[in-house]
Amino acid sequence: MRDEKKTGSGSSEFDFIARIRRQAQKRISNLDSFSSLIPHPSSLILGIGDDAAVIRQRSGLDSVITADLLVEGIDFDLDTFKTSPRDIGHKALAVSLSDIAAMGARPRWALLSIGVPQTRWDSSFLEEFYKGVRALACLHDVTIIGGDISRTPERVVVDSIVLGEVLRGRAVLRSGARPGDRIYVTGSVGGAAAGLNILQQGSHQQTTRRRTRAQRQLIQRQTRPTPRVEWGRMLCEKKLATAMIDLSDGLSSDLAHLCRESGVGARVEAGRVPVDSLIERAGINESDALPLALNGGEDFELLFTVRPRAAAKLPDKVGGVPVTHIGDVTGDEGKACLVEGGRARILKPSGFQHFKRS
Amino acid sequence: MRDEKKTGSGSSEFDFIARIRRQAQKRISNLDSFSSLIPHPSSLILGIGDDAAVIRQRSGLDSVITADLLVEGIDFDLDTFKTSPRDIGHKALAVSLSDIAAMGARPRWALLSIGVPQTRWDSSFLEEFYKGVRALACLHDVTIIGGDISRTPERVVVDSIVLGEVLRGRAVLRSGARPGDRIYVTGSVGGAAAGLNILQQGSHQQTTRRRTRAQRQLIQRQTRPTPRVEWGRMLCEKKLATAMIDLSDGLSSDLAHLCRESGVGARVEAGRVPVDSLIERAGINESDALPLALNGGEDFELLFTVRPRAAAKLPDKVGGVPVTHIGDVTGDEGKACLVEGGRARILKPSGFQHFKRS
Repeated sequence: MRDEKKTGSGSSEFDFIARIRRQAQKRISNLDSFSSLIPHPSSLILGIGDDAAVIRQRSGLDSVITADLLVEGIDFDLDTFKTSPRDIGHKALAVSLSDIAAMGARPRWALLSIGVPQTRWDSSFLEEFYKGVRALACLHDVTIIGGDISRTPERVVVDSIVLGEVLRGRAVLRSGARPGDRIYVTGSVGGAAAGLNILQQGSHQQTTRRRTRAQRQLIQRQTRPTPRVEWGRMLCEKKLATAMIDLSDGLSSDLAHLCRESGVGARVEAGRVPVDSLIERAGINESDALPLALNGGEDFELLFTVRPRAAAKLPDKVGGVPVTHIGDVTGDEGKACLVEGGRARILKPSGFQHFKRS
Repeated sequence: MRDEKKTGSGSSEFDFIARIRRQAQKRISNLDSFSSLIPHPSSLILGIGDDAAVIRQRSGLDSVITADLLVEGIDFDLDTFKTSPRDIGHKALAVSLSDIAAMGARPRWALLSIGVPQTRWDSSFLEEFYKGVRALACLHDVTIIGGDISRTPERVVVDSIVLGEVLRGRAVLRSGARPGDRIYVTGSVGGAAAGLNILQQGSHQQTTRRRTRAQRQLIQRQTRPTPRVEWGRMLCEKKLATAMIDLSDGLSSDLAHLCRESGVGARVEAGRVPVDSLIERAGINESDALPLALNGGEDFELLFTVRPRAAAKLPDKVGGVPVTHIGDVTGDEGKACLVEGGRARILKPSGFQHFKRS
């Protein structure tokens, strides 16, 4: 028995795209109503429904583009963890918005390519997925302008593409850090990895209903990350960040990426790392907290560097999200160290990698 | 035993991305050496290796963006058909270049998101895949500026994103056809579908080595389609095409898309449809040829409309590829008919659909 309201019932992907297109057009008609740091942004000429989308370019701006692939069974889990399709839509867009934020750019346009098996097509999966995408897109004035829908044999796969804009020459790269710069991180770290651990344990122990409030909040850190778009734009607009990266693989790994691109080293104070306070509240061992914060990944906070003389101009919070000075850039190229209890040790990049080294 | 030259041997995805980046940078250094219809194209500020790519915008241009998802087991077959990784790289980019061509735009930048299982990572798959991408990109002066690499549990999945440029307001949409316009198609049709049939039969009969030259050429139509970039750009530059679409789903379906967007109908002469001559040479039944040409899909030819008074300006060939006048646009909104042996019948959209209607 098929539910008449469900996606695939009596409809082809062309019908579905037509529906997504109508919903997108509602957004387009509201496009001119927001205020922006960018005086004359580009405008959408043509969205979903032709061979490609068309955007009118404006000089004085640079376009910023990123793509992020999420695969069922690797990046998210629909069955074991009971992650909702809406959360997957949210996360797919969030991950790309975070990349745009890490460039200091303003996100403007998104394309979502999604592959689903016939069974998901015959359910409300895609409708729910796009609800998650649209809610987050709306929050950041991002318009969905295209993508692709394809069938897959078994698993859901999503590629999220976001285009942003930044004033000419002002994108914040990973390569601008200099020795003496201070290293900051927004929000808190380790929560997403702790949330993943709880999901993984829960799937074995069937303890879903007995989770504490803190545990449920940690799971949300994993399933509904918040991209730091406002922080990124502010740091770019005020010319405060000399280098920036988002924390997707894990602080230790992402700091290593930034150091390598900048040709510098780093010294991080373990005691300053803003470990997510939910970790303690959820009853996770104190000894596990710092490794989660350093290597856990998927927090989608921003890690950035600031010249010492500009540090005073840094606000304590943006949109309620605090920032923490966790250490400093050194001239010791390629070496990051962690100072703990007065002793320094090498901070080895131990974050997420998709492929095992042989 | 692992081959030292292979992708995954002792390397992470970061090493692989670094390699792709070096290869891409070689291309970037040659960027200014080509001639172009567009006087001041955008320029690449930052390619692979940061959170996102950065492109400098120029006013007077519109950006054109498309994404196409290809999934192993649906859109291509590695094991049964023995499709080479290089051919998959070629086809992934070709499909998106074809979309850009169908807008009349010049393709400029590409992002490739690719998911592969660990076993493919441990083989030369990705190296070969990118060789296929790069060879076609090079042919069209397209630079690879980003994407994502992810692990998948079983199957290869590719999302190909291409950005192009077109003079302001000059993109050729699906919606510009008017009653009386002539309908044209580039090259020939039906070959890609015939090639797929041969692959599917061969996989059962194990007749791979006994294929004729024509059969092998038809397989190439399926595995290595040629996007009609030069035709698309010429039709836009000379303002000849009033509407355009590329033939991905099949002539009957894609013509229906164009008619719907333009609010028109169409009348196609069966005898004029340029059925791929390889089909006859490969010994395929004459009665099967026209259905393959009308509904087969994946030919990636361009279907476009031209005002009757402009038709004389249309060249016979562009880059050796001919064009055929197959019929005319009518005012009979939403209705396409096929005239065969003096009798007209409805041309039902019967091309490829990913999802079955329930």
